[in-house]
Parts: sequence; structure tokens; C-alpha cells
Amino acid sequence: MSHEFSESEKAGFYRAVFERRDCRRFRPEPIPEPTLARILEAAHHAPSVGFMQPWDFILIRDSLIREKIHQAFLRANDEAQELFEGERRRQYTTFKLEGIRESPLNICVTCQRDRFGPVVLGKTCQPEMDLYSTVCAVQNLWLAARVEGIGVGWVSIVHAGELSAILGLPPQVVPVAYLCLGHVEKFAPEPELQTAGWLPRLPLQDVVRFENWESSSQNEWQRLRQELENR
Amino acid sequence: MSHEFSESEKAGFYRAVFERRDCRRFRPEPIPEPTLARILEAAHHAPSVGFMQPWDFILIRDSLIREKIHQAFLRANDEAQELFEGERRRQYTTFKLEGIRESPLNICVTCQRDRFGPVVLGKTCQPEMDLYSTVCAVQNLWLAARVEGIGVGWVSIVHAGELSAILGLPPQVVPVAYLCLGHVEKFAPEPELQTAGWLPRLPLQDVVRFENWESSSQNEWQRLRQELENR
Repeated sequence: MSHEFSESEKAGFYRAVFERRDCRRFRPEPIPEPTLARILEAAHHAPSVGFMQPWDFILIRDSLIREKIHQAFLRANDEAQELFEGERRRQYTTFKLEGIRESPLNICVTCQRDRFGPVVLGKTCQPEMDLYSTVCAVQNLWLAARVEGIGVGWVSIVHAGELSAILGLPPQVVPVAYLCLGHVEKFAPEPELQTAGWLPRLPLQDVVRFENWESSSQNEWQRLRQELENR
Repeated sequence: MSHEFSESEKAGFYRAVFERRDCRRFRPEPIPEPTLARILEAAHHAPSVGFMQPWDFILIRDSLIREKIHQAFLRANDEAQELFEGERRRQYTTFKLEGIRESPLNICVTCQRDRFGPVVLGKTCQPEMDLYSTVCAVQNLWLAARVEGIGVGWVSIVHAGELSAILGLPPQVVPVAYLCLGHVEKFAPEPELQTAGWLPRLPLQDVVRFENWESSSQNEWQRLRQELENR
């Protein structure tokens, strides 16, 4: 018995994967509640180590809270710019890197590291697995939003300690992702940093290796290598 | 202009989200190359901080390498069992937690932390963002595999240092996920740990908060709260 999806089901899934974008420009209309509930439900059905479901989704519309987070972004971004030099710094300043205030909704996705107690199945020798589970929830959320026609942007230029203070997170709760959500004018055909020439997309075959890092035994993999190069 | 997908496209996407499972029992038939190429391409189209695409996918079929990794799993699992007590330990030993040797393919997804140089846009104050980008690629891979009818299991009970030694990873390359892939007899209707009563699925409304951790201002969110509770 095949568990493969139909061609039309596959097409819907792959469209989400290939048309998802990191968005920073939003329209002000609110996200309808049923849409938002579907997006959150998809996030909540991410895999989690030991089924601990360590995530919380803090939904933020309050403009005062968002103003504080925007100020924290500005401070972190000033520090970040200093790390680039010459033409790279000039180009960096032309990028819009967040939509904290103009998007109708922000979501901070957190990880409660001691949920269901100190010992979690599957996390005993890789303690970061709960953080990784939370990132899986972020990716589900991001893809589900695309399907619903909602843009998402991940703001990583902000210090975690400032986020925790502004949102009142307990010590065992870590902010993993700070997201801006909303309707958008368009989803760009490719990532903005690719279009701007900041970095190129790597060829798929360059990120696939065989048997070990040094990729010594490639002959057995000839057919797959051809498939990868044809993409 | 709406960017929302059609109902049939949405259905394909959500089916992948809700029917994806962590699989540990595999059939031996190989995964066809075109299928595997589509799964890897979906993974490679994950979001990445500063468009750095820090991932590599090491495909492992070699039985000697897999035997070594299985031995590393056994050692880590013996340590892990010691952390559970009484009935929990007895139940732990009944779970099948990996399919390293019987699956036709293992994939180690790694993160090259210095790809494209030491300073990466968006990673300057959250240095873990490259690891999180790699996890997004894992989640894309996992969902794409489900669409293709291929099961994936994430083996987290193995020490990263042992994986690095066995696969010959350079110091700046971190193993993020060790995955087993293959055809499966079935995708279970719910997570195995849920079915076994190890932990319950949390109600969606219990993992959504409003404005901050303490959720003080709930009135404005009444309609969304009802949507969440109806799921």
C-alpha cells in the first residue's frame, strides 16, 4: 500500500515550500480569527522531542509592547551594522529587516525548557532538542501562514534578554523566534537577499554529501547526483 | 489580491502537517532517486538567516557506518534509561526509538557555522540562528517525505561528538539531526508516545498567550480564544 499523496495534494504542499518568503512589508488589516487559529494549530502539530510540546505562542497586538521591541531591534541593529564594512555596510542599511510596528500581529514563539519535568525522553544527551522542536513549530507556522496568504517575517536582530524582560518570561522560558505576521502586497519570487545579490542560492548538489563529510564513495550515488544536478 | 491557496492546495498542505509522524519501523526497499531529490530540494528551500543556507545533507547507506552509529545509540540509550525510574523506566524500554540499521537510508543534517564567513546578516546577536535555520530544513524534509509516502524518524539519543567522529565532520560543522528514512507499513493515526499514554497532547488554547507571558489582557482576544477551544 502506497502512502504517497495524490499529485494535487503534493502540488499544494510544494507550492507552500517554494513560495514561502521572509516578509517585512505588511498591510494593516487584521488576520481573521479562524485563519489565525488554523495557523496556530498547524504549528502545534509540529514534532517534539519526547512529545513534550515545549512551545508557547505569545500573540502581541499591543502597540506599547511592540514599540519597546522595536526600540530593542534598533539598538541591536546599530550594533550589527558596525560589524559590516564598506560597501557591505552601505548595502546592509538599505535592507528592511523587520515589520514589528506595521504588521497587525507579532508572535513570540517560546520554549519552556522544563515542561513536563526535568527528564525528557530523547533529550537526555542532546539538551537542545526542545529548542529544535520549537523551531519545527515555527516552520509549520510559517508554511501554514503562506497557505493562508499571510506573510511572516522572523526578526532575529534583537537580544533575547530584552525580549524576555519586555514579555515577562520566566527564567526557564526562552524566546526562540520573534515573528511579524500580516497580509502582504506580494510574495517575492525569490528571497530578497538573493535578488539583491547579497548571497547566491547554493546549487542543490553542493549541499548533498555521501556516506561521510569527505564524500569519498560517490559512484554508487551516480543516479541521485544526476537527479540533483537536473534541479 | 488574495494570496490564499485554493481549498485543494490547502488540503494537501494540512494533510502533510497532521499526518506526519516520527517513524521507527521501516521496510527495506530503497527510496527512488527522483523521490529523494524532491525531498532534498524541499529541505534546501527552507528559510535561512542571512540566506546563508548553512546545511549539508549527508546521505548514509553504508552498513558499517550505520553499525557504528547504532552502537553509539545503544551506549547513549543505556545512559538515558538510567535517568528514568520504576514504571517509567520499564515503559521506556518498550519503546523502539530508532531504525538506523533497518531503514534503507540515514541522513545526517549538519550546520556549517562559518559558511560565507564569520559575520552573517541576522545572526550577529542570536548566534544560534544558523542552527535554527538548519532545523527549518529538517522540518521541510520531514513534511516533504510524508507527502512522498516516506517515513522519517529523528534519532536524538546519540552524542553529537560521536556522530562527528564517525562522519568525519570538521570542527565548525555541527550535526543537528540524525534521520532514518524509508517506506513504512503505516503512518500511525497519532504520535506513539501519545497512544502509549507517555504524555498527553496539550489543548491548543493552553499554549497560546496574549500580549505577554502572564496573559493579562484576554478580553480583546475573546473570538480567537473561542476558535482555539473549538479545535
